[in-house]
Amino acid sequence: MSGKTNTQILVREIPTGALTQAHFETTEAPMPAPVTGGVLVRNILLSLDAANRAWMQGDTYRKAVVAGQVMDGYGVGEVVVSEDEGFAPGDLVAGALGWQDYVALPGRALVKLPGGYRPLSHFLSVLGIAGRTAYHGLMWIGEPKEGDTVVVSAAAGSVGQYVGQIAKLKGCRAIGIAGGPEKCAFLTDELGFDAAVDYKSEHVRKRLAELAPDGIDVYFDNVGGAILEAALFTMAQFGRVVCCGAISQYDTTEMESPRGIPGVIVFKRLKLQGFIVSDFADKDAEASRDLMAWATEGKLKVVEDVLEGLEHAPEGLIGLLHGDNIGKRMVRIGPDPG
Amino acid sequence: MSGKTNTQILVREIPTGALTQAHFETTEAPMPAPVTGGVLVRNILLSLDAANRAWMQGDTYRKAVVAGQVMDGYGVGEVVVSEDEGFAPGDLVAGALGWQDYVALPGRALVKLPGGYRPLSHFLSVLGIAGRTAYHGLMWIGEPKEGDTVVVSAAAGSVGQYVGQIAKLKGCRAIGIAGGPEKCAFLTDELGFDAAVDYKSEHVRKRLAELAPDGIDVYFDNVGGAILEAALFTMAQFGRVVCCGAISQYDTTEMESPRGIPGVIVFKRLKLQGFIVSDFADKDAEASRDLMAWATEGKLKVVEDVLEGLEHAPEGLIGLLHGDNIGKRMVRIGPDPG
Repeated sequence: MSGKTNTQILVREIPTGALTQAHFETTEAPMPAPVTGGVLVRNILLSLDAANRAWMQGDTYRKAVVAGQVMDGYGVGEVVVSEDEGFAPGDLVAGALGWQDYVALPGRALVKLPGGYRPLSHFLSVLGIAGRTAYHGLMWIGEPKEGDTVVVSAAAGSVGQYVGQIAKLKGCRAIGIAGGPEKCAFLTDELGFDAAVDYKSEHVRKRLAELAPDGIDVYFDNVGGAILEAALFTMAQFGRVVCCGAISQYDTTEMESPRGIPGVIVFKRLKLQGFIVSDFADKDAEASRDLMAWATEGKLKVVEDVLEGLEHAPEGLIGLLHGDNIGKRMVRIGPDPG
Repeated sequence: MSGKTNTQILVREIPTGALTQAHFETTEAPMPAPVTGGVLVRNILLSLDAANRAWMQGDTYRKAVVAGQVMDGYGVGEVVVSEDEGFAPGDLVAGALGWQDYVALPGRALVKLPGGYRPLSHFLSVLGIAGRTAYHGLMWIGEPKEGDTVVVSAAAGSVGQYVGQIAKLKGCRAIGIAGGPEKCAFLTDELGFDAAVDYKSEHVRKRLAELAPDGIDVYFDNVGGAILEAALFTMAQFGRVVCCGAISQYDTTEMESPRGIPGVIVFKRLKLQGFIVSDFADKDAEASRDLMAWATEGKLKVVEDVLEGLEHAPEGLIGLLHGDNIGKRMVRIGPDPG
C-alpha cells in the first residue's frame, strides 16, 4: 500500500442551518500507519444515519463532530495490517471508521464480525445499529402486546421498516408514517404494514385518529416536531412513546417542539423514554439471534439503499435528511473481500 | 335540616384565559334529598387543587367541568342521612363533594375515613391526594436511590413539600423550585430541603446546573413550561421525570412547551412518565402506612393553608394558580363533628 493515498472527506464547517455539500471537503492524505499495537482497516461500507447530522449540533451521548476533522461515521471494513493479537489480516470488523478509505484504530475500537455471513451490508442494516435499534426500542421500551396498535414515523427508513415488521411479527397492528405515495405503498404492499399515513399530503392527527380509533398503544418516534405532537394527542391511555430520534429537528435552526407537553403526558399517563442502541448491549445477543433468524427465514424484508463510491457520502447524507431514501442508506467505499 | 338551604358555588362560565371571580356565582338551592339508597353528606373541608382548573380545559382523565353546574372538588364530610347500609350518620367520608354545604351521593362515590384520626384536614393533605401523589410519583416513577439529586417544582405547594421531604427520608439531596424568598426560606429552614431556587429572581437553568453539577436524577414536575425545559437540560443521563402536573399551563391560552423535545430525551436517555394518584391505588395501603407513621413521628412536617368559609373558595383557587399558598390549601365549609 505504500505510495497509495487515503481519500478522506472532512467537515469543512459546522452547519448552523441546513447541511450542504459546502460543509464538506475532500482531501488526499498519506496512508495511515497502524497505531502501535493497533489495526489498519480498509473501509468497505459506510453507514449514513440521521444521527450523523445530530452529532454536528453539539455534544450528545458522544462528543460533537468538529470542523477540520474527518467526518465521523460507522462502517464495516477488512483488517489489512494488525499489531493487535486479537485481529488478523482478512478479519471483518465494524466500528467508527469515518468517511475515508483507510483508518488506523486500536483494536478495542472495533468489533469483529463473523467471517462467513453475507451480504456484508446486513451488518449495517438488519443486523447492525438499524435493526437492533428497532428491536431494542420496540421490545424494551414499547413493550408491545398482541393486538396493540403500533405507529412508527420515518417508517420507510432504516429503523422504521423493522419497527413495523417486528410489530407485525409480535401480533400488533402496524401503521407507518412516511412522506409521499411511493413510500406509503412500499410500506403496505412490500413490508406488510396495515396502513400508512402520508405526512406530506394528509392531516396526520386526523388520519391517526381514524386509523387508531382506540388510540395508539406504542408510538416509535424517529422525527419529533409536529408529527410527534399529532401522535401524542392520539395516544391511548398508558401509551408508550419510544424516543429514538428527531430527524425533523437536526437540520434546522428553527426547533419545533410538540405543544401541550407535559399536559398530555399527565392526563393520558404516557411514558416517553429515550435510548440509544448501546443502552441495551446486554440484550444484543437475543436481538441478533431473532433478527438473523427472521431475515434468513424471509419473515423480515431487508431493504437497502447503497450508493456507490465514497464521494457520494455528502449528497447521500443530505438526501437522507430530506427523506430521499427507502430503507437503510449506506455508501460502498470498496469491494467486498475476495 | 328542613327549611335550611344549600349554599352552592356554580361555574357561571368556562374561562378561556385567566380564571376570575366572574367565572363563578353563588346560589341558594334547596337541601338535597339523599338519592335512593344513597347518602346525604354535610361538607366540612374542601380541597383546592391546580387540577380543578385543568378540569375546566376539557376532558382529561375525567369529564370536563361544565358551565351551570356546581364546581367540582374533592372534600371531607360527615354523613347526616344514609339509605346505604355501608354508611351511618356520623361516619366521616371523602369524595368529590363539590363546592357546596351539602351533597347527596351514592355510597360507592364515597370513601369511609377512620373515625378516630384527627385533625381531619390531614385527609386532604398528608394522608390525602396530595401526600399520596407525592409518595406514588416519587417512589414508583422517580425511583429515587440513595445519593440521588431530586428536584421538585411548586416545591412549597401541597404535593411538592412532601416530595422533597420524602426524598430526604430516602437519603437523597432535595432541591426545591418555588417563587419568592419567603417560600425558598420555608423550604430550606422549615422543611429541610438542601437548597431552593427562586424562579422569580434567579436563572433557573443556571442555578440548577450549579446546585446539581452531576445532573438531576429525578425531577418531579408540577409546573411544565419553561421550568420543565430548564430541568430537562440539567438532567443526568438516564434521569427520570415524574410528570405530575402543569400548573403554568392551566390558566392561560398561551401554551408554552419545553423546547428541545424529543432531542434531549433521546440523547440523555430520559424517561418522562405521567400519572394520576389513582393509578397506584394498589399501593395506597403502603403509602398511607408510611405517611401516617412519618407524620405521627414528626419526620414529615405537614403544612396546611386553610381558608375559613365556602365563599372564599373562588379567590382561594385563583390565588393558588398564582402561587399564593404555602402548603396544602383547603377551605373550611363547616365545623368538625362534635
